[in-house]
Amino acid sequence: MTDAKRVMTVKPRNAETPATQLRSWLTPNDAFFERNQGLQPDPPIDVETWSLRIEGEVVTPHTFSYADLLGMPKDTVANTLECSGNSRSLLKSKAAGNPWTIGGVGNAVWGGVALRHLLERVGLKASAKHVAFEGLDTPTGKAQIKFIRSIPLAKALDATLLAYEMNGEPLPPAHGFPLRSLALGWTGANCVKWLHRIRVLAHPHEGFFMDKVYRVFQKGMAPEEGTVVTGLTLKSIITQPLDGDQLPLGEILVLGAAYAGELEIADVAFSSDNGRSWQPTEFIGPREPFSWRQWRHIWRPTAPGDYTLLARASAVDGRRQPMDADWNVLGYGNNGVHEHGVRVHIG
Amino acid sequence: MTDAKRVMTVKPRNAETPATQLRSWLTPNDAFFERNQGLQPDPPIDVETWSLRIEGEVVTPHTFSYADLLGMPKDTVANTLECSGNSRSLLKSKAAGNPWTIGGVGNAVWGGVALRHLLERVGLKASAKHVAFEGLDTPTGKAQIKFIRSIPLAKALDATLLAYEMNGEPLPPAHGFPLRSLALGWTGANCVKWLHRIRVLAHPHEGFFMDKVYRVFQKGMAPEEGTVVTGLTLKSIITQPLDGDQLPLGEILVLGAAYAGELEIADVAFSSDNGRSWQPTEFIGPREPFSWRQWRHIWRPTAPGDYTLLARASAVDGRRQPMDADWNVLGYGNNGVHEHGVRVHIG
Repeated sequence: MTDAKRVMTVKPRNAETPATQLRSWLTPNDAFFERNQGLQPDPPIDVETWSLRIEGEVVTPHTFSYADLLGMPKDTVANTLECSGNSRSLLKSKAAGNPWTIGGVGNAVWGGVALRHLLERVGLKASAKHVAFEGLDTPTGKAQIKFIRSIPLAKALDATLLAYEMNGEPLPPAHGFPLRSLALGWTGANCVKWLHRIRVLAHPHEGFFMDKVYRVFQKGMAPEEGTVVTGLTLKSIITQPLDGDQLPLGEILVLGAAYAGELEIADVAFSSDNGRSWQPTEFIGPREPFSWRQWRHIWRPTAPGDYTLLARASAVDGRRQPMDADWNVLGYGNNGVHEHGVRVHIG
Repeated sequence: MTDAKRVMTVKPRNAETPATQLRSWLTPNDAFFERNQGLQPDPPIDVETWSLRIEGEVVTPHTFSYADLLGMPKDTVANTLECSGNSRSLLKSKAAGNPWTIGGVGNAVWGGVALRHLLERVGLKASAKHVAFEGLDTPTGKAQIKFIRSIPLAKALDATLLAYEMNGEPLPPAHGFPLRSLALGWTGANCVKWLHRIRVLAHPHEGFFMDKVYRVFQKGMAPEEGTVVTGLTLKSIITQPLDGDQLPLGEILVLGAAYAGELEIADVAFSSDNGRSWQPTEFIGPREPFSWRQWRHIWRPTAPGDYTLLARASAVDGRRQPMDADWNVLGYGNNGVHEHGVRVHIG
């Protein structure tokens, strides 16, 4: 009962959620976007033999079974997950990478165990400063490089979930069964699927996926000089009507979402005249930390014609979504206000 | 990926959610309990020809199309839905009806339009006091009586959603496609599926499903003298471990849910000694009006043996869940504290 995803690449699988499926607070599992560097384990992982190893700068390295994790204190968190490169194709100057429109994002309710509980069990050495995650996907492409990412220890202790459940079901194979990490409010690159090894480190992990990509940098800079992509940027999207829609004159229900990762959204403004004037919108649906807010606006155009619709979010700390995002070589974090064209005709 | 429902009757279909599927804040659509008086429309309703008629004590009766509803202001609400007779089979004295254990309940995120918007559009006469809902299910059984229920106008205006979406998907056929009413925080009997007609009335609807059932009454009373079932009662359930489980001695993760319909839960106490002593539990997961709270407790039994586990909820108004529910002829609203037996053995 869900519209088909737009598949961008097959091996590895990269597919985005259609805008029609972003109109709900909850994104169903089978509609949720997929972003992979490697190939999904095939056949699916057997939880009887699977384990999670934690080692490195810890007092007592330990191997946890699936049953061990299910027996630890459960947490449940609604979390909006977005691909670092989402909306890349909407940048005014092209950037390299998968041509995401707005559908590299979704919101789910995740169940699992806080990484903090596991780190407390193994004990941290004073040298522990970063935490690296490694999955069981198969490296692909000529380089055959393993997708490994690390996050700072503070994030790992404060707000990182090891999720075994997605929207009330066991984590589906496409989303990392049996276990994925979720650095809450951070982009998908920081959230490793098919997780089987965690290494606590004294320094950030070094490797292709830490140093060469998932960094914001400009032309002429080395990638290593750029900033590592972490939290979601402050952003709003319009999910209804669709860009290019033709609509009969009358009351038009405009729907959208706004999110800012770790930060709460304060409000979303709507413009039907390409930013000359702005109207407030109304929030609808659940209000949960790390989750997007869905919003609505009843738009009443008074004459037929071509209209450019905009939405612009503000966060509780006073920040506003930029009209244009800062460009970067790999096109990460595009949170510019997107021009959304529709035609209104006499019904 | 969900455990099978326990089917109690096939025509009409009545099936409860297994306890294993009640451990999540969100109940997946295919795991959500089903309670029917009539037979589900077959083939599924065609939204091109379906309509919703609103008539009765209104200024301008009107027929709404599916597209009309999708164009009206959308609302999204997390709402726990429970069958009026849930937990009937756990009553200490038997009562007539489907033998629900704890699985006649579930929590979903529903999208739709507030009934208020439609009532404002048709306009209410001063005589309007109640609102009756009629679906397109086929009456079954000897009596061939149509399932029609009414709710007071105040509830219809304040907190009643006409839902076309369930957990981010179009409302599934089994749950009332294309539209069901949800009197938020009230039992399933007040939430009509396959909705196609709403009548605004000067008095409550009169009929079998208003007068003879879904009323709390004692032996020797006429059903009509009883109280109509409306809001969920204050209640907690233990969803892990299961009643009868055998567990190795050690740390045991206890999970459960607590809910009270329109009222917010304040806390849930846990006992492992049949109520002689009580420990606090921790809430986990989203906190939304009309939705249950999931809770957890790490239980550390110090010796093997047989234990009787209890959970008891309190609401923000100071009310406490009763140890034993008041019995009634049809076994509605059983919110007594359930004795949950487990055996702990040396691992």
